[in-house]
Amino acid sequence: MSLNLSSARHRQAGCLMPGPDLMHEIIYGIHPVSEALNAEKRKFYRIYVSCRKDNERKDNRRITAIENMAEKAGIPIETIPDSRLSTITTHAVHQGIAAETSPFRLVGLDEMLHEALHGIRSVSKNQTPFILMADSISDAGNLGALIRTSVCAGLTGIIIPKNRSARPSPAVSKASAGAMEHALICRATNLSDTMKILKKNGFWIVGLDRDADMAIYEADMTGPTALVIGGEDTGIRPLVLRNCDLSCNIPQTGPVNSLNASVAAAVAIYETIRQKTLKG
Amino acid sequence: MSLNLSSARHRQAGCLMPGPDLMHEIIYGIHPVSEALNAEKRKFYRIYVSCRKDNERKDNRRITAIENMAEKAGIPIETIPDSRLSTITTHAVHQGIAAETSPFRLVGLDEMLHEALHGIRSVSKNQTPFILMADSISDAGNLGALIRTSVCAGLTGIIIPKNRSARPSPAVSKASAGAMEHALICRATNLSDTMKILKKNGFWIVGLDRDADMAIYEADMTGPTALVIGGEDTGIRPLVLRNCDLSCNIPQTGPVNSLNASVAAAVAIYETIRQKTLKG
Repeated sequence: MSLNLSSARHRQAGCLMPGPDLMHEIIYGIHPVSEALNAEKRKFYRIYVSCRKDNERKDNRRITAIENMAEKAGIPIETIPDSRLSTITTHAVHQGIAAETSPFRLVGLDEMLHEALHGIRSVSKNQTPFILMADSISDAGNLGALIRTSVCAGLTGIIIPKNRSARPSPAVSKASAGAMEHALICRATNLSDTMKILKKNGFWIVGLDRDADMAIYEADMTGPTALVIGGEDTGIRPLVLRNCDLSCNIPQTGPVNSLNASVAAAVAIYETIRQKTLKG
Repeated sequence: MSLNLSSARHRQAGCLMPGPDLMHEIIYGIHPVSEALNAEKRKFYRIYVSCRKDNERKDNRRITAIENMAEKAGIPIETIPDSRLSTITTHAVHQGIAAETSPFRLVGLDEMLHEALHGIRSVSKNQTPFILMADSISDAGNLGALIRTSVCAGLTGIIIPKNRSARPSPAVSKASAGAMEHALICRATNLSDTMKILKKNGFWIVGLDRDADMAIYEADMTGPTALVIGGEDTGIRPLVLRNCDLSCNIPQTGPVNSLNASVAAAVAIYETIRQKTLKG
Protein backbone atom coordinates (compact mmCIF):
# COMPACT_ATOMS: atom_id res chain seq x y z
CA MET A 1 0.00 0.00 0.00
CA SER A 2 1.50 3.34 -1.04
CA LEU A 3 0.85 6.02 1.54
CA ASN A 4 0.89 9.72 0.83
CA LEU A 5 1.46 10.94 4.34
CA SER A 6 -0.26 14.25 3.74
CA SER A 7 -3.46 12.49 2.73
CA ALA A 8 -6.36 13.03 5.10
CA ARG A 9 -7.90 9.77 3.93
CA HIS A 10 -4.91 7.74 5.07
CA ARG A 11 -4.74 9.79 8.26
CA GLN A 12 -8.27 8.67 9.05
CA ALA A 13 -7.56 5.07 8.07
CA GLY A 14 -4.93 4.85 10.79
CA CYS A 15 -2.07 4.53 8.29
CA LEU A 16 -0.50 7.81 9.31
CA MET A 17 3.15 8.00 10.28
CA PRO A 18 4.74 11.32 11.26
CA GLY A 19 7.10 12.39 8.52
CA PRO A 20 7.64 14.62 5.52
CA ASP A 21 5.26 14.88 2.64
CA LEU A 22 6.60 11.89 0.72
CA MET A 23 5.22 8.61 -0.55
CA HIS A 24 6.02 5.97 2.03
CA GLU A 25 5.19 2.30 1.90
CA ILE A 26 4.34 -0.20 4.62
CA ILE A 27 5.94 -3.56 3.91
CA TYR A 28 5.10 -6.45 6.20
CA GLY A 29 6.07 -10.03 6.97
CA ILE A 30 9.39 -11.52 8.05
CA HIS A 31 10.87 -12.24 4.61
CA PRO A 32 9.96 -8.89 3.00
CA VAL A 33 11.35 -6.86 5.91
CA SER A 34 14.54 -8.90 6.28
CA GLU A 35 15.20 -9.09 2.53
CA ALA A 36 14.57 -5.34 2.16
CA LEU A 37 17.19 -4.78 4.86
CA ASN A 38 19.60 -7.14 3.07
CA ALA A 39 18.98 -5.60 -0.35
CA GLU A 40 19.67 -2.05 0.92
CA LYS A 41 17.48 -0.51 -1.78
CA ARG A 42 14.80 1.09 0.40
CA LYS A 43 15.22 3.81 3.01
CA PHE A 44 13.84 2.52 6.33
CA TYR A 45 11.99 5.07 8.45
CA ARG A 46 10.76 2.79 11.20
CA ILE A 47 10.17 -0.86 12.04
CA TYR A 48 7.04 -1.94 13.88
CA VAL A 49 7.04 -5.07 15.98
CA SER A 50 3.98 -6.54 17.64
CA CYS A 51 4.10 -6.56 21.44
CA ARG A 52 2.70 -10.10 21.26
CA LYS A 53 6.11 -11.12 19.98
CA ASP A 54 7.59 -12.03 23.31
CA ASN A 55 5.10 -14.62 24.38
CA GLU A 56 2.98 -15.95 21.56
CA ARG A 57 4.73 -15.67 18.20
CA LYS A 58 6.37 -18.67 16.59
CA ASP A 59 8.83 -16.52 14.68
CA ASN A 60 10.41 -14.75 17.64
CA ARG A 61 13.94 -15.72 16.71
CA ARG A 62 13.66 -14.41 13.18
CA ILE A 63 12.06 -11.17 14.41
CA THR A 64 14.87 -10.73 16.94
CA ALA A 65 17.41 -11.16 14.14
CA ILE A 66 15.67 -8.38 12.18
CA GLU A 67 15.67 -6.15 15.29
CA ASN A 68 19.41 -6.68 15.65
CA MET A 69 20.01 -5.75 12.00
CA ALA A 70 17.81 -2.67 12.40
CA GLU A 71 19.60 -1.56 15.56
CA LYS A 72 22.98 -1.78 13.84
CA ALA A 73 21.59 0.29 10.96
CA GLY A 74 20.15 2.88 13.35
CA ILE A 75 16.54 2.30 12.35
CA PRO A 76 13.96 3.15 15.03
CA ILE A 77 11.99 0.14 16.29
CA GLU A 78 8.54 0.65 17.77
CA THR A 79 6.72 -2.05 19.73
CA ILE A 80 2.99 -1.67 19.24
CA PRO A 81 -0.19 -3.63 19.99
CA ASP A 82 -1.07 -6.35 17.51
CA SER A 83 -4.32 -4.57 16.70
CA ARG A 84 -2.42 -1.43 15.64
CA LEU A 85 -0.05 -3.48 13.50
CA SER A 86 -3.09 -5.03 11.84
CA THR A 87 -4.51 -1.57 11.14
CA ILE A 88 -1.21 -0.27 9.74
CA THR A 89 -0.91 -3.27 7.42
CA THR A 90 -4.62 -3.10 6.49
CA HIS A 91 -5.16 -6.54 8.05
CA ALA A 92 -2.60 -8.42 5.97
CA VAL A 93 -0.81 -11.47 7.39
CA HIS A 94 2.01 -9.44 8.96
CA GLN A 95 3.69 -12.17 11.07
CA GLY A 96 4.25 -9.64 13.85
CA ILE A 97 6.44 -7.23 11.88
CA ALA A 98 6.16 -4.33 9.44
CA ALA A 99 8.31 -1.46 8.25
CA GLU A 100 7.70 2.04 6.97
CA THR A 101 10.06 2.48 4.03
CA SER A 102 10.59 4.47 0.87
CA PRO A 103 8.57 3.04 -2.06
CA PHE A 104 9.90 0.14 -4.09
CA ARG A 105 12.24 1.64 -6.70
CA LEU A 106 11.32 0.75 -10.27
CA VAL A 107 13.95 0.91 -13.00
CA GLY A 108 13.67 2.19 -16.57
CA LEU A 109 14.21 -0.03 -19.60
CA ASP A 110 17.57 1.66 -20.26
CA GLU A 111 18.84 0.75 -16.80
CA MET A 112 17.61 -2.84 -17.11
CA LEU A 113 19.20 -3.26 -20.54
CA HIS A 114 22.47 -1.80 -19.28
CA GLU A 115 22.45 -4.22 -16.33
CA ALA A 116 21.60 -7.16 -18.61
CA LEU A 117 24.25 -6.37 -21.21
CA HIS A 118 27.04 -4.80 -19.14
CA GLY A 119 26.22 -5.24 -15.41
CA ILE A 120 28.92 -6.81 -13.26
CA ARG A 121 26.66 -9.56 -11.96
CA SER A 122 25.41 -10.44 -15.43
CA VAL A 123 28.86 -10.48 -17.02
CA SER A 124 30.51 -12.44 -14.18
CA LYS A 125 28.02 -15.26 -14.69
CA ASN A 126 29.31 -15.87 -18.17
CA GLN A 127 25.75 -16.33 -19.41
CA THR A 128 23.89 -14.47 -22.12
CA PRO A 129 21.32 -11.92 -20.81
CA PHE A 130 17.94 -13.16 -19.60
CA ILE A 131 14.90 -10.98 -18.86
CA LEU A 132 11.35 -12.04 -18.00
CA MET A 133 8.28 -10.26 -19.39
CA ALA A 134 5.13 -10.93 -17.34
CA ASP A 135 2.06 -10.02 -19.40
CA SER A 136 -1.36 -9.47 -17.76
CA ILE A 137 -0.62 -11.09 -14.41
CA SER A 138 -3.22 -9.39 -12.25
CA ASP A 139 -2.96 -11.60 -9.17
CA ALA A 140 -0.41 -10.49 -6.55
CA GLY A 141 0.25 -14.10 -5.54
CA ASN A 142 1.05 -15.19 -9.09
CA LEU A 143 3.27 -12.18 -9.80
CA GLY A 144 5.06 -12.73 -6.50
CA ALA A 145 5.69 -16.40 -7.33
CA LEU A 146 7.12 -15.45 -10.75
CA ILE A 147 9.39 -12.79 -9.24
CA ARG A 148 10.59 -15.27 -6.58
CA THR A 149 11.59 -17.86 -9.19
CA SER A 150 13.21 -15.20 -11.43
CA VAL A 151 15.31 -13.78 -8.60
CA CYS A 152 16.41 -17.21 -7.32
CA ALA A 153 17.30 -18.31 -10.84
CA GLY A 154 19.43 -15.18 -11.31
CA LEU A 155 17.58 -13.38 -14.12
CA THR A 156 18.51 -9.74 -14.68
CA GLY A 157 14.99 -8.41 -14.24
CA ILE A 158 11.27 -8.50 -14.87
CA ILE A 159 9.27 -6.26 -17.20
CA ILE A 160 5.56 -5.80 -16.48
CA PRO A 161 3.00 -3.66 -18.32
CA LYS A 162 1.74 -0.48 -16.60
CA ASN A 163 -1.85 -1.55 -17.13
CA ARG A 164 -3.36 -5.02 -16.75
CA SER A 165 -0.83 -6.13 -14.18
CA ALA A 166 -0.39 -6.29 -10.44
CA ARG A 167 2.19 -3.69 -9.41
CA PRO A 168 5.23 -4.44 -7.21
CA SER A 169 3.30 -3.83 -3.99
CA PRO A 170 4.00 -5.01 -0.44
CA ALA A 171 1.55 -7.88 -1.10
CA VAL A 172 3.64 -8.98 -4.09
CA SER A 173 6.80 -8.70 -1.99
CA LYS A 174 5.16 -10.97 0.61
CA ALA A 175 4.08 -13.46 -2.08
CA SER A 176 7.65 -13.50 -3.43
CA ALA A 177 8.98 -14.41 0.06
CA GLY A 178 10.82 -11.08 -0.04
CA ALA A 179 12.68 -11.88 -3.28
CA MET A 180 11.05 -8.81 -4.89
CA GLU A 181 13.24 -6.60 -2.68
CA HIS A 182 16.27 -7.71 -4.73
CA ALA A 183 14.57 -7.57 -8.15
CA LEU A 184 15.02 -5.09 -10.98
CA ILE A 185 11.48 -4.38 -12.16
CA CYS A 186 10.49 -2.15 -15.07
CA ARG A 187 6.90 -1.07 -15.77
CA ALA A 188 6.45 -0.61 -19.53
CA THR A 189 3.74 1.60 -21.01
CA ASN A 190 3.48 -0.62 -24.06
CA LEU A 191 4.92 -4.14 -24.09
CA SER A 192 4.97 -4.32 -27.90
CA ASP A 193 7.15 -1.20 -28.14
CA THR A 194 9.40 -2.63 -25.42
CA MET A 195 9.75 -5.86 -27.39
CA LYS A 196 10.92 -3.89 -30.44
CA ILE A 197 13.62 -2.19 -28.34
CA LEU A 198 14.71 -5.54 -26.91
CA LYS A 199 14.94 -6.99 -30.43
CA LYS A 200 17.09 -4.05 -31.55
CA ASN A 201 19.39 -4.88 -28.64
CA GLY A 202 19.84 -8.44 -29.83
CA PHE A 203 17.23 -10.17 -27.68
CA TRP A 204 15.33 -13.20 -28.93
CA ILE A 205 11.76 -13.06 -27.65
CA VAL A 206 10.21 -16.39 -26.65
CA GLY A 207 6.56 -16.66 -25.61
CA LEU A 208 5.30 -19.47 -23.38
CA ASP A 209 1.98 -20.54 -24.91
CA ARG A 210 0.15 -23.75 -24.15
CA ASP A 211 -1.22 -23.85 -27.72
CA ALA A 212 2.22 -23.60 -29.34
CA ASP A 213 3.42 -26.52 -31.45
CA MET A 214 7.07 -26.38 -30.40
CA ALA A 215 8.22 -27.85 -27.08
CA ILE A 216 10.38 -25.56 -24.96
CA TYR A 217 13.31 -27.98 -25.38
CA GLU A 218 13.34 -27.37 -29.13
CA ALA A 219 13.65 -23.59 -28.76
CA ASP A 220 17.14 -22.08 -28.88
CA MET A 221 17.55 -19.75 -25.91
CA THR A 222 21.33 -19.65 -25.83
CA GLY A 223 21.48 -16.01 -27.00
CA PRO A 224 20.10 -12.95 -25.14
CA THR A 225 16.54 -13.97 -24.22
CA ALA A 226 13.32 -12.29 -23.14
CA LEU A 227 10.85 -14.94 -21.99
CA VAL A 228 7.20 -13.85 -22.11
CA ILE A 229 4.69 -15.37 -19.65
CA GLY A 230 0.94 -14.68 -19.71
CA GLY A 231 -1.79 -14.66 -17.09
CA GLU A 232 -3.15 -17.83 -15.43
CA ASP A 233 -6.39 -17.95 -17.42
CA THR A 234 -5.83 -15.54 -20.28
CA GLY A 235 -2.31 -16.42 -21.43
CA ILE A 236 -0.27 -13.91 -23.42
CA ARG A 237 -2.40 -11.26 -25.19
CA PRO A 238 -2.63 -11.86 -28.98
CA LEU A 239 -0.73 -8.72 -30.04
CA VAL A 240 2.07 -9.45 -27.57
CA LEU A 241 2.21 -13.07 -28.76
CA ARG A 242 2.44 -11.93 -32.41
CA ASN A 243 5.50 -9.88 -31.51
CA CYS A 244 7.34 -12.91 -30.11
CA ASP A 245 10.05 -14.42 -32.31
CA LEU A 246 8.70 -17.84 -31.44
CA SER A 247 6.31 -19.48 -29.03
CA CYS A 248 6.65 -22.82 -27.28
CA ASN A 249 4.89 -24.99 -24.71
CA ILE A 250 5.71 -27.22 -21.75
CA PRO A 251 4.89 -30.79 -22.88
CA GLN A 252 2.03 -32.36 -20.91
CA THR A 253 1.69 -36.01 -21.85
CA GLY A 254 -0.37 -37.08 -18.83
CA PRO A 255 -4.14 -37.62 -18.62
CA VAL A 256 -4.74 -34.00 -17.60
CA ASN A 257 -3.37 -30.81 -19.08
CA SER A 258 -3.56 -28.35 -16.22
CA LEU A 259 -0.03 -27.46 -15.18
CA ASN A 260 -0.09 -24.59 -12.68
CA ALA A 261 0.92 -21.32 -14.40
CA SER A 262 3.71 -20.49 -11.93
CA VAL A 263 5.06 -24.01 -12.28
CA ALA A 264 5.02 -23.82 -16.10
CA ALA A 265 6.81 -20.47 -15.95
CA ALA A 266 9.45 -21.90 -13.60
CA VAL A 267 10.07 -24.87 -15.91
CA ALA A 268 10.53 -22.49 -18.86
CA ILE A 269 12.82 -20.20 -16.85
CA TYR A 270 15.04 -23.09 -15.80
CA GLU A 271 15.16 -24.62 -19.28
CA THR A 272 16.46 -21.24 -20.48
CA ILE A 273 19.00 -21.17 -17.63
CA ARG A 274 20.10 -24.72 -18.51
CA GLN A 275 20.76 -23.79 -22.11
CA LYS A 276 22.67 -20.65 -21.12
CA THR A 277 24.70 -22.50 -18.47
CA LEU A 278 25.76 -25.23 -20.84
CA LYS A 279 26.67 -22.71 -23.53
CA GLY A 280 28.51 -20.47 -21.02
CA MET B 1 -12.26 -37.11 4.84
CA SER B 2 -12.85 -40.85 5.03
CA LEU B 3 -16.25 -41.69 6.43
CA ASN B 4 -17.11 -44.93 8.10
CA LEU B 5 -20.84 -44.78 7.64
CA SER B 6 -21.56 -46.86 10.71
CA SER B 7 -19.76 -44.38 12.90
CA ALA B 8 -21.96 -42.58 15.39
CA ARG B 9 -19.51 -39.70 15.51
CA HIS B 10 -19.89 -39.01 11.82
CA ARG B 11 -23.62 -39.52 12.12
CA GLN B 12 -23.71 -36.72 14.64
CA ALA B 13 -21.40 -34.52 12.59
CA GLY B 14 -23.91 -34.52 9.75
CA CYS B 15 -21.63 -36.50 7.41
CA LEU B 16 -23.96 -39.50 7.29
CA MET B 17 -25.13 -40.91 4.02
CA PRO B 18 -27.47 -43.90 3.85
CA GLY B 19 -25.58 -46.91 2.60
CA PRO B 20 -23.83 -50.11 3.56
CA ASP B 21 -21.15 -50.30 6.20
CA LEU B 22 -18.30 -49.29 3.92
CA MET B 23 -15.72 -46.54 3.89
CA HIS B 24 -17.04 -43.76 1.70
CA GLU B 25 -15.33 -40.52 0.92
CA ILE B 26 -16.67 -37.03 0.28
CA ILE B 27 -14.72 -35.32 -2.46
CA TYR B 28 -15.51 -31.68 -3.21
CA GLY B 29 -14.75 -28.91 -5.66
CA ILE B 30 -15.31 -28.70 -9.41
CA HIS B 31 -11.99 -30.16 -10.59
CA PRO B 32 -11.89 -33.13 -8.16
CA VAL B 33 -15.48 -34.15 -8.95
CA SER B 34 -15.16 -33.75 -12.73
CA GLU B 35 -11.72 -35.41 -12.90
CA ALA B 36 -12.94 -38.31 -10.73
CA LEU B 37 -15.78 -38.79 -13.22
CA ASN B 38 -13.31 -38.65 -16.13
CA ALA B 39 -10.84 -41.02 -14.49
CA GLU B 40 -13.54 -43.66 -13.80
CA LYS B 41 -11.62 -45.08 -10.83
CA ARG B 42 -14.09 -44.31 -8.04
CA LYS B 43 -17.62 -45.59 -7.63
CA PHE B 44 -20.00 -42.62 -7.35
CA TYR B 45 -22.88 -43.01 -4.88
CA ARG B 46 -24.30 -39.51 -5.11
CA ILE B 47 -23.50 -36.00 -6.22
CA TYR B 48 -24.49 -33.02 -4.08
CA VAL B 49 -25.06 -29.65 -5.67
CA SER B 50 -25.75 -26.48 -3.75
CA CYS B 51 -29.17 -24.98 -4.36
CA ARG B 52 -27.43 -21.58 -4.57
CA LYS B 53 -26.07 -22.75 -7.90
CA ASP B 54 -28.78 -21.33 -10.07
CA ASN B 55 -28.50 -17.75 -9.04
CA GLU B 56 -25.27 -16.88 -7.31
CA ARG B 57 -22.45 -19.22 -8.31
CA LYS B 58 -19.81 -18.18 -10.82
CA ASP B 59 -19.14 -21.76 -11.87
CA ASN B 60 -22.68 -22.65 -12.95
CA ARG B 61 -21.64 -23.76 -16.42
CA ARG B 62 -19.00 -26.16 -15.12
CA ILE B 63 -21.38 -27.56 -12.52
CA THR B 64 -24.04 -28.08 -15.19
CA ALA B 65 -21.48 -29.98 -17.30
CA ILE B 66 -20.79 -32.27 -14.30
CA GLU B 67 -24.54 -32.80 -13.79
CA ASN B 68 -24.88 -33.83 -17.43
CA MET B 69 -22.01 -36.32 -17.09
CA ALA B 70 -23.52 -37.70 -13.88
CA GLU B 71 -26.98 -38.07 -15.44
CA LYS B 72 -25.53 -40.06 -18.34
CA ALA B 73 -23.72 -42.30 -15.85
CA GLY B 74 -26.89 -42.80 -13.78
CA ILE B 75 -25.49 -41.16 -10.65
CA PRO B 76 -28.13 -39.63 -8.33
CA ILE B 77 -27.86 -35.85 -7.98
CA GLU B 78 -29.20 -34.17 -4.86
CA THR B 79 -29.69 -30.43 -4.59
CA ILE B 80 -29.18 -29.32 -1.00
CA PRO B 81 -28.83 -26.06 0.92
CA ASP B 82 -25.38 -24.50 0.90
CA SER B 83 -25.19 -24.84 4.68
CA ARG B 84 -25.69 -28.62 4.43
CA LEU B 85 -23.03 -28.88 1.70
CA SER B 86 -20.67 -26.99 4.01
CA THR B 87 -21.42 -29.43 6.83
CA ILE B 88 -20.91 -32.47 4.60
CA THR B 89 -17.56 -31.15 3.39
CA THR B 90 -16.57 -30.04 6.93
CA HIS B 91 -16.49 -26.42 5.75
CA ALA B 92 -13.98 -26.87 2.94
CA VAL B 93 -14.09 -24.62 -0.13
CA HIS B 94 -16.56 -26.82 -2.03
CA GLN B 95 -17.40 -24.48 -4.96
CA GLY B 96 -21.02 -25.64 -4.78
CA ILE B 97 -20.39 -29.32 -5.49
CA ALA B 98 -19.40 -32.53 -3.70
CA ALA B 99 -19.69 -36.26 -4.29
CA GLU B 100 -19.97 -39.33 -2.10
CA THR B 101 -17.66 -41.90 -3.65
CA SER B 102 -15.66 -45.01 -2.90
CA PRO B 103 -12.30 -44.19 -1.28
CA PHE B 104 -9.32 -43.26 -3.41
CA ARG B 105 -7.76 -46.52 -4.59
CA LEU B 106 -4.10 -46.88 -3.65
CA VAL B 107 -1.88 -49.28 -5.60
CA GLY B 108 0.80 -51.65 -4.37
CA LEU B 109 4.44 -51.33 -5.37
CA ASP B 110 4.10 -54.40 -7.62
CA GLU B 111 1.29 -52.80 -9.58
CA MET B 112 3.17 -49.52 -9.93
CA LEU B 113 6.34 -51.28 -11.08
CA HIS B 114 4.37 -53.34 -13.58
CA GLU B 115 2.75 -50.19 -14.97
CA ALA B 116 6.12 -48.39 -15.11
CA LEU B 117 7.95 -51.23 -16.84
CA HIS B 118 5.24 -52.83 -18.99
CA GLY B 119 2.13 -50.57 -18.92
CA ILE B 120 0.65 -49.59 -22.26
CA ARG B 121 0.80 -45.87 -21.52
CA SER B 122 4.40 -46.05 -20.33
CA VAL B 123 5.61 -48.15 -23.24
CA SER B 124 3.77 -46.12 -25.89
CA LYS B 125 5.59 -43.00 -24.76
CA ASN B 126 8.92 -44.48 -25.74
CA GLN B 127 10.48 -43.09 -22.57
CA THR B 128 12.25 -44.92 -19.76
CA PRO B 129 10.15 -45.34 -16.55
CA PHE B 130 9.80 -42.39 -14.20
CA ILE B 131 8.39 -42.51 -10.64
CA LEU B 132 8.30 -39.78 -7.99
CA MET B 133 8.99 -40.48 -4.30
CA ALA B 134 7.64 -37.75 -2.01
CA ASP B 135 9.30 -38.01 1.41
CA SER B 136 7.81 -36.30 4.49
CA ILE B 137 5.44 -33.95 2.72
CA SER B 138 2.94 -33.30 5.46
CA ASP B 139 1.10 -30.38 3.92
CA ALA B 140 -1.91 -31.28 1.75
CA GLY B 141 -1.34 -28.25 -0.49
CA ASN B 142 2.29 -29.17 -1.19
CA LEU B 143 1.50 -32.84 -1.84
CA GLY B 144 -1.37 -31.81 -4.12
CA ALA B 145 0.91 -29.48 -6.09
CA LEU B 146 3.50 -32.26 -6.54
CA ILE B 147 0.86 -34.74 -7.69
CA ARG B 148 -0.57 -32.18 -10.15
CA THR B 149 2.82 -31.59 -11.77
CA SER B 150 3.60 -35.34 -11.84
CA VAL B 151 0.30 -36.23 -13.51
CA CYS B 152 0.54 -33.41 -16.09
CA ALA B 153 4.14 -34.36 -16.90
CA GLY B 154 3.08 -37.97 -17.47
CA LEU B 155 4.97 -39.80 -14.68
CA THR B 156 3.86 -43.35 -13.92
CA GLY B 157 3.12 -42.74 -10.26
CA ILE B 158 3.97 -41.31 -6.86
CA ILE B 159 5.26 -43.22 -3.83
CA ILE B 160 4.66 -41.70 -0.39
CA PRO B 161 5.56 -43.08 3.06
CA LYS B 162 2.72 -44.37 5.28
CA ASN B 163 3.91 -42.20 8.14
CA ARG B 164 5.13 -38.60 8.01
CA SER B 165 3.13 -37.75 4.94
CA ALA B 166 -0.19 -36.26 3.99
CA ARG B 167 -2.39 -39.04 2.60
CA PRO B 168 -4.27 -38.84 -0.73
CA SER B 169 -7.29 -37.16 0.85
CA PRO B 170 -10.05 -35.08 -0.75
CA ALA B 171 -8.08 -31.98 0.35
CA VAL B 172 -5.05 -33.23 -1.60
CA SER B 173 -7.27 -33.94 -4.61
CA LYS B 174 -8.54 -30.36 -4.42
CA ALA B 175 -4.98 -29.00 -4.11
CA SER B 176 -3.98 -31.04 -7.17
CA ALA B 177 -6.82 -29.45 -9.20
CA GLY B 178 -8.30 -32.96 -9.46
CA ALA B 179 -5.14 -34.44 -11.03
CA MET B 180 -4.88 -36.88 -8.09
CA GLU B 181 -7.97 -38.70 -9.44
CA HIS B 182 -5.83 -39.94 -12.36
CA ALA B 183 -2.70 -40.72 -10.31
CA LEU B 184 -1.23 -44.07 -9.33
CA ILE B 185 -0.23 -43.61 -5.69
CA CYS B 186 1.49 -46.17 -3.49
CA ARG B 187 1.90 -45.79 0.28
CA ALA B 188 5.12 -47.50 1.38
CA THR B 189 5.69 -48.73 4.93
CA ASN B 190 9.41 -48.11 4.64
CA LEU B 191 10.85 -45.89 1.90
CA SER B 192 14.36 -47.34 2.26
CA ASP B 193 13.09 -50.88 1.62
CA THR B 194 11.10 -49.57 -1.34
CA MET B 195 14.22 -47.95 -2.75
CA LYS B 196 16.06 -51.28 -2.59
CA ILE B 197 13.30 -52.94 -4.60
CA LEU B 198 13.35 -50.12 -7.15
CA LYS B 199 17.12 -50.50 -7.50
CA LYS B 200 16.74 -54.24 -8.07
CA ASN B 201 14.33 -53.37 -10.87
CA GLY B 202 16.89 -51.20 -12.60
CA PHE B 203 15.86 -47.80 -11.25
CA TRP B 204 18.40 -45.07 -10.63
CA ILE B 205 17.42 -43.11 -7.52
CA VAL B 206 18.03 -39.36 -7.63
CA GLY B 207 17.46 -37.14 -4.58
CA LEU B 208 16.72 -33.44 -4.90
CA ASP B 209 18.76 -31.79 -2.15
CA ARG B 210 19.57 -28.10 -1.95
CA ASP B 211 22.91 -28.90 -0.27
CA ALA B 212 24.06 -31.25 -3.05
CA ASP B 213 27.12 -30.28 -5.08
CA MET B 214 25.88 -31.54 -8.43
CA ALA B 215 23.45 -29.47 -10.52
CA ILE B 216 20.43 -31.38 -11.80
CA TYR B 217 21.65 -30.84 -15.38
CA GLU B 218 24.76 -32.89 -14.67
CA ALA B 219 22.79 -35.92 -13.44
CA ASP B 220 22.03 -38.67 -15.93
CA MET B 221 18.34 -39.52 -15.75
CA THR B 222 17.98 -41.17 -19.12
CA GLY B 223 17.46 -44.64 -17.58
CA PRO B 224 14.58 -45.76 -15.32
CA THR B 225 14.40 -43.03 -12.66
CA ALA B 226 12.91 -42.55 -9.19
CA LEU B 227 13.17 -38.89 -8.22
CA VAL B 228 13.05 -38.25 -4.46
CA ILE B 229 11.65 -34.95 -3.15
CA GLY B 230 11.67 -33.90 0.52
CA GLY B 231 9.45 -31.67 2.65
CA GLU B 232 9.40 -27.86 2.35
CA ASP B 233 11.47 -27.19 5.47
CA THR B 234 12.98 -30.55 6.35
CA GLY B 235 14.18 -31.82 2.96
CA ILE B 236 14.75 -35.54 2.42
CA ARG B 237 15.35 -37.50 5.66
CA PRO B 238 19.05 -38.46 6.12
CA LEU B 239 18.53 -42.23 5.84
CA VAL B 240 16.43 -41.83 2.69
CA LEU B 241 19.04 -39.46 1.23
CA ARG B 242 21.83 -41.97 1.95
CA ASN B 243 19.93 -44.58 -0.06
CA CYS B 244 19.84 -42.35 -3.15
CA ASP B 245 22.30 -43.21 -5.93
CA LEU B 246 23.07 -39.52 -6.23
CA SER B 247 21.74 -36.19 -5.07
CA CYS B 248 21.58 -32.95 -6.98
CA ASN B 249 20.30 -29.39 -6.64
CA ILE B 250 18.54 -26.73 -8.68
CA PRO B 251 21.13 -23.96 -9.27
CA GLN B 252 20.19 -20.69 -7.61
CA THR B 253 22.62 -17.98 -8.69
CA GLY B 254 20.52 -14.99 -7.65
CA PRO B 255 20.81 -12.87 -4.50
CA VAL B 256 18.37 -15.11 -2.59
CA ASN B 257 18.25 -18.87 -2.33
CA SER B 258 14.64 -19.58 -1.51
CA LEU B 259 13.08 -21.36 -4.47
CA ASN B 260 9.60 -22.62 -3.57
CA ALA B 261 9.69 -26.38 -2.90
CA SER B 262 6.93 -27.23 -5.40
CA VAL B 263 8.67 -25.12 -8.02
CA ALA B 264 12.02 -26.82 -7.40
CA ALA B 265 10.35 -30.23 -7.66
CA ALA B 266 8.68 -29.25 -10.93
CA VAL B 267 11.97 -28.07 -12.41
CA ALA B 268 13.60 -31.40 -11.47
CA ILE B 269 10.66 -33.40 -12.85
CA TYR B 270 10.80 -31.59 -16.17
CA GLU B 271 14.59 -31.84 -16.46
CA THR B 272 14.14 -35.61 -16.08
CA ILE B 273 11.38 -35.59 -18.72
CA ARG B 274 13.61 -33.55 -21.05
CA GLN B 275 16.43 -36.07 -20.80
CA LYS B 276 14.07 -39.00 -21.35
CA THR B 277 12.33 -37.29 -24.29
CA LEU B 278 15.59 -36.51 -26.06
CA LYS B 279 16.85 -40.03 -25.50
CA GLY B 280 13.51 -41.56 -26.56
